[in-house]
Amino acid sequence: MLPATERILLGPGPSPVSPRIMRAMAAPVLSHLDPDLVVMLDDVRARLGRVFRLGDGGLCLAISGTGTSGMEAAVANIAHEGTRALVVVTGYFGDRLAQMLGRYGAQVTRVEVEWGRACDPEAVRKALASGRVNLVAVVQAETSTGVLNPVEAIARIAREHDALTLVDAVTSLAAHPLDVAAWDVDVCYSCSQKGLGAPSGMAPIAFGPRALARRVPSRSFSFDLSLLEDYWVRRKYHHTLSSTLLYALREALIAVEEEGLEARWARHRRHHRVLAAGLGAMGLELLPPEPERLWSLNAVCVPEGVDEAAVRRTLLQQFNIEIGAGLGPLAGRIWRVGLMGSGSSSQLVLLFLSALEQALREQGYRMDPGAGTAAAADALASFR
Amino acid sequence: MLPATERILLGPGPSPVSPRIMRAMAAPVLSHLDPDLVVMLDDVRARLGRVFRLGDGGLCLAISGTGTSGMEAAVANIAHEGTRALVVVTGYFGDRLAQMLGRYGAQVTRVEVEWGRACDPEAVRKALASGRVNLVAVVQAETSTGVLNPVEAIARIAREHDALTLVDAVTSLAAHPLDVAAWDVDVCYSCSQKGLGAPSGMAPIAFGPRALARRVPSRSFSFDLSLLEDYWVRRKYHHTLSSTLLYALREALIAVEEEGLEARWARHRRHHRVLAAGLGAMGLELLPPEPERLWSLNAVCVPEGVDEAAVRRTLLQQFNIEIGAGLGPLAGRIWRVGLMGSGSSSQLVLLFLSALEQALREQGYRMDPGAGTAAAADALASFR
Repeated sequence: MLPATERILLGPGPSPVSPRIMRAMAAPVLSHLDPDLVVMLDDVRARLGRVFRLGDGGLCLAISGTGTSGMEAAVANIAHEGTRALVVVTGYFGDRLAQMLGRYGAQVTRVEVEWGRACDPEAVRKALASGRVNLVAVVQAETSTGVLNPVEAIARIAREHDALTLVDAVTSLAAHPLDVAAWDVDVCYSCSQKGLGAPSGMAPIAFGPRALARRVPSRSFSFDLSLLEDYWVRRKYHHTLSSTLLYALREALIAVEEEGLEARWARHRRHHRVLAAGLGAMGLELLPPEPERLWSLNAVCVPEGVDEAAVRRTLLQQFNIEIGAGLGPLAGRIWRVGLMGSGSSSQLVLLFLSALEQALREQGYRMDPGAGTAAAADALASFR
Repeated sequence: MLPATERILLGPGPSPVSPRIMRAMAAPVLSHLDPDLVVMLDDVRARLGRVFRLGDGGLCLAISGTGTSGMEAAVANIAHEGTRALVVVTGYFGDRLAQMLGRYGAQVTRVEVEWGRACDPEAVRKALASGRVNLVAVVQAETSTGVLNPVEAIARIAREHDALTLVDAVTSLAAHPLDVAAWDVDVCYSCSQKGLGAPSGMAPIAFGPRALARRVPSRSFSFDLSLLEDYWVRRKYHHTLSSTLLYALREALIAVEEEGLEARWARHRRHHRVLAAGLGAMGLELLPPEPERLWSLNAVCVPEGVDEAAVRRTLLQQFNIEIGAGLGPLAGRIWRVGLMGSGSSSQLVLLFLSALEQALREQGYRMDPGAGTAAAADALASFR
């Protein structure tokens, strides 16, 4: 019943886990208070600080849980009754962030943006002008629509209004430029299984100095930053952190630093562009306009007359390739193709385009044979 | 920096992870919505139902997180403002449970019991007589004191008063008798890394039919049972469950069923008794009186004049053996020796007693050479 072959993970996450990370994960289990493990906590905190570009005076750690836990941990320690939050909603995860803030008692105002488009920072400015707000929350990489939101500009406007900025970097960390300190982001969380390329189960989170100063008492025990800080920094028991997942996260962070963060961003951009060139030659369109597209997650419009579920089924059953379906109002209208972590590679782009061509042919979709891979190969050559 | 050798995990958890579970964990990663993975969710739910002995009409699943997350998930879905909870506090984890209930708005009455002793069910009966209570919460295996609480009797009394019973089985599941349905337990949670012997990172949880009927809206999003049920039962996305941890948990559950639940309980009892015989011959005492002792976690009193931290250091550095220190008021007064999952073995008991003898000798503690292992071997023979 365990999978016998490697699934090629080109969905919205998890991304493919490279062999070095699987090997690290197989190292002997240590307890959460083992002297050899607590040293590793410091190492992981330092590496996380560098991948978030947190700067001085902040605090990084990893929540034992998934990106959703990261979101809840961010919200639980920064919002409560009386918090006035402005949430940029450009898709499913922006909506979830608004719900989460509501659950923790915040008074939420939503800046609604059409699904498939990025938020115009001026909409945030306008919304901030009409009332006092403590917190601006935004998803950098909206996984449901393939859209990149302009976090730097939004955080600047929030700072002008003395509001904190909370950023969901679940699908952007280690794939897209993100500079927590330089951009004046105050709280930022992510996951382990996308840009970083580890298995899911840990959620990196960063609190800048302003967020630490303005934190609120957490209603949640599991996500209580003071208790988590007691554990990660002062080695006081809080929960039984999984050494297995920590080894994997640490190895992933080492791989990121070996590659170089900026080189990694450039790799994600390159393979996104190569994919986009291939899809374009096959007559397929991406949902967001060009400047608003994610590199890590490509929202591909399903052509008329094509059964989107059948295409995914063919990819899975004949080619062992997973891609994602659309969520909410985009269900049936898009495919979500992730190129993240080690999944952002020229080989996988070419393989995917070939397999997609076959799957579309089965649906009677007409295109020049090999047009997609040829255009992708040309695009790839242009980067050399 | 990764551990090169296998640490012998005889602390309060994690317990040793057997090779078959490490191998299962190394299987190719699948996404949380992969058709091959969602089938496994059903399999794990069914196996969890059998290990909890949940019976019909309830719901089992595993929280993505640790035992602490399991506790929070249990509380978040069953307690809120207006809940009157009676919490049995026999140690650190009973206290944590009371705190957790308080965080979720419950009005908490504590039945305080001296650390090192089990709760007398009559104390619960008396407390219930003095006012209406909706919920009785108790830790079955109090990991901080090595005490087993009489859950069956307490749950019976709670039922007589029409209160729900919430049980922490973090250090008892698959090590001590537990029969959720037959005992009228309503909510029960555990962890993956103790009696089950998988790495930490998943928290099995069981809700009986009465608990499902009386559940409350969860303030937490991550731990919201309706959303978790949507995912585990109806395959609707909620969070990115780690296939890696699910493989490990499933393999651990298969191993439990191969051994047989009752045979596994008997094994834990046997090796606890063998250890106790050995410790007794070395002049060492266990903290709880004999009928109140856990099989999975042995609270060993530190003899006068012995530096408890030095003993733990010797065990760790010279023998690669981890045991736990005391928590709270028991810090410095006890060692916590876990024999859980695959760690409950005659070989490890003999090894531990030998190593402990050496460590105690270094401290000038006087005892007959080899008395501990000889008594343990005799006790072991008496079980054959």
